[in-house]
Amino acid sequence: MTQRPLDAARVLVTGGLGFIGSNLAARLVEEGARVTLVDSLIPQYGGNPFNIEPVRGRVEVNICDVRDPYAMAHLVQGHDLLFNLAGQTSHLDSMTEPHADLDINAGAQLSILEACRKHNPGIKIVYASTRQLYGKPDYLPVDENHPIRPVDVNGVNKLAGEQYHLLYNNVYGIRACALRLTNTYGPRMRVKDARQTFLGIWVRRLVEGKPLLVFGDGLQLRDFNYVDDCVDALLRAATDPKADGRVYNLGSREVVSLKDVAQMCVDLLPGGGSYEIVPFPPERKAIDIGDYYGEFRSIEAELGWQPRVGLREGLARTIAFVCEHRQHYWDTDA
Amino acid sequence: MTQRPLDAARVLVTGGLGFIGSNLAARLVEEGARVTLVDSLIPQYGGNPFNIEPVRGRVEVNICDVRDPYAMAHLVQGHDLLFNLAGQTSHLDSMTEPHADLDINAGAQLSILEACRKHNPGIKIVYASTRQLYGKPDYLPVDENHPIRPVDVNGVNKLAGEQYHLLYNNVYGIRACALRLTNTYGPRMRVKDARQTFLGIWVRRLVEGKPLLVFGDGLQLRDFNYVDDCVDALLRAATDPKADGRVYNLGSREVVSLKDVAQMCVDLLPGGGSYEIVPFPPERKAIDIGDYYGEFRSIEAELGWQPRVGLREGLARTIAFVCEHRQHYWDTDA
Repeated sequence: MTQRPLDAARVLVTGGLGFIGSNLAARLVEEGARVTLVDSLIPQYGGNPFNIEPVRGRVEVNICDVRDPYAMAHLVQGHDLLFNLAGQTSHLDSMTEPHADLDINAGAQLSILEACRKHNPGIKIVYASTRQLYGKPDYLPVDENHPIRPVDVNGVNKLAGEQYHLLYNNVYGIRACALRLTNTYGPRMRVKDARQTFLGIWVRRLVEGKPLLVFGDGLQLRDFNYVDDCVDALLRAATDPKADGRVYNLGSREVVSLKDVAQMCVDLLPGGGSYEIVPFPPERKAIDIGDYYGEFRSIEAELGWQPRVGLREGLARTIAFVCEHRQHYWDTDA
Repeated sequence: MTQRPLDAARVLVTGGLGFIGSNLAARLVEEGARVTLVDSLIPQYGGNPFNIEPVRGRVEVNICDVRDPYAMAHLVQGHDLLFNLAGQTSHLDSMTEPHADLDINAGAQLSILEACRKHNPGIKIVYASTRQLYGKPDYLPVDENHPIRPVDVNGVNKLAGEQYHLLYNNVYGIRACALRLTNTYGPRMRVKDARQTFLGIWVRRLVEGKPLLVFGDGLQLRDFNYVDDCVDALLRAATDPKADGRVYNLGSREVVSLKDVAQMCVDLLPGGGSYEIVPFPPERKAIDIGDYYGEFRSIEAELGWQPRVGLREGLARTIAFVCEHRQHYWDTDA
């Protein structure tokens, strides 16, 4: 980032009260942008008004559902940039409520893009996609050319959402790109349950003095990005024209087994904790992908991005945040 | 096919009054199946009551839209086999009405699969997918591992529909497979306009004594399947358990330039005709894919399928059919 390219930029963020959206909002405010956050505040999803406490009064907030095409047609106007982060993220919910997942992750994306095409074709869009659409890897690390073979409805629909963005870039010249995020974690993530990331429920259980549960044998490999690194990638994608029409994996050089991550969390908790290795619940086993870690050489080469925050450091910050603010993230009676 | 495996099988066909559905219906009746055809008869799509003239009274017909989840939940019950052929096929319409395309090609597919899961998990499903989802080929012939990169909204949504089928096979054990059809042609295709296949409008214009229009330079390569060959592939996929969970390309060893196909059509028309090479209309150029032909070795090796009807022979039958029945396929005043 040179010369504050976002200074005075008019920026819209869908999912703006969510985990990544709120962290992005804080950074955008620092960079001098004029920020509008859109969020549905549906209780099962990631939005939480407390997430934007640090920037309250310095951002506009508009509560509405991205499935509302009239609201979105109005909101995309007058903005230079759209960070399109709103989504249904729960793999299990996508199997029990497949149509809701389709409406949010595909239908609403189409409405947003149509609104841009009709009312603001000069906007630039950065779309938050997911490594989920690769399914069970054929090889590791998984690069952007790996076959696409989603193992759950969420993966199918997120792929459609991603493809619409590239299509509108290629066919209509509406500048858009997609980042395929891997496991992102950090302050402000949903910790009430596992709907956004399993790390959420792990941290909650630890903080509540319960053992965290690792499914399977715990040897599954994963990569993780601390949210500030993810935000940095989003900003680079937004400000570098090389990104237009492109899809990039995020990822990390630190590849860790779930058991080792669990141990790290336990070690980092003031006062300690424990974890248990338990069999997969069948509904999770059916959509499990085994080992996964991503190749992120393209975004490194083209946009100069690489992750900077190590897993231990990132988890320490995350756990400290949750310990300090737990009352804003779950109802202790629930 | 040995021993009439479809004898007395209870078979449901969506898009049953359409081009492929009606040809399939006739073959299914021959094979002794008890056939129910579902069709919406939306005028812009492929359904035409005249298409089932040869089997009238020997099939059940249920007019409804696959987007009607209640109707579909009822209809999937009591069937052994579902040929799921209903779809929005127009690439251009998918760009002007992207939500309708999404609702039919993805949303309705999800409803149908959910209905099978809840009410008839023993059903076997054959889904008609399309080579459109490959987009502009990286290499030729295109095999099933070619990257998926749809160039229009139709391709994105058809891909989602295909992936749902494989997912329900893998996660829920509802036996399903997909055939990625290439340009299919033959009697009963939509010839009123180019919504189903460009060959339709070519044949109509020829029969009306107008020159048919070839876009671009006419050198684009394509492969074609006569509808009987496509029906044969559908039946093999339906009756061979090796197909479960699989995706197969169809294709042909005869790879031809559009100009040569145009010349063939002209030669075959009793009384002759002519063609003109004209520039691409811009909205078609934006979604054009250049040369395409498919590798169909997998279905050949696994299900023993190969195309049998040559292009000249197939086109001759097609043109003869259209000449004989033109009054049932377009309003001569329109």
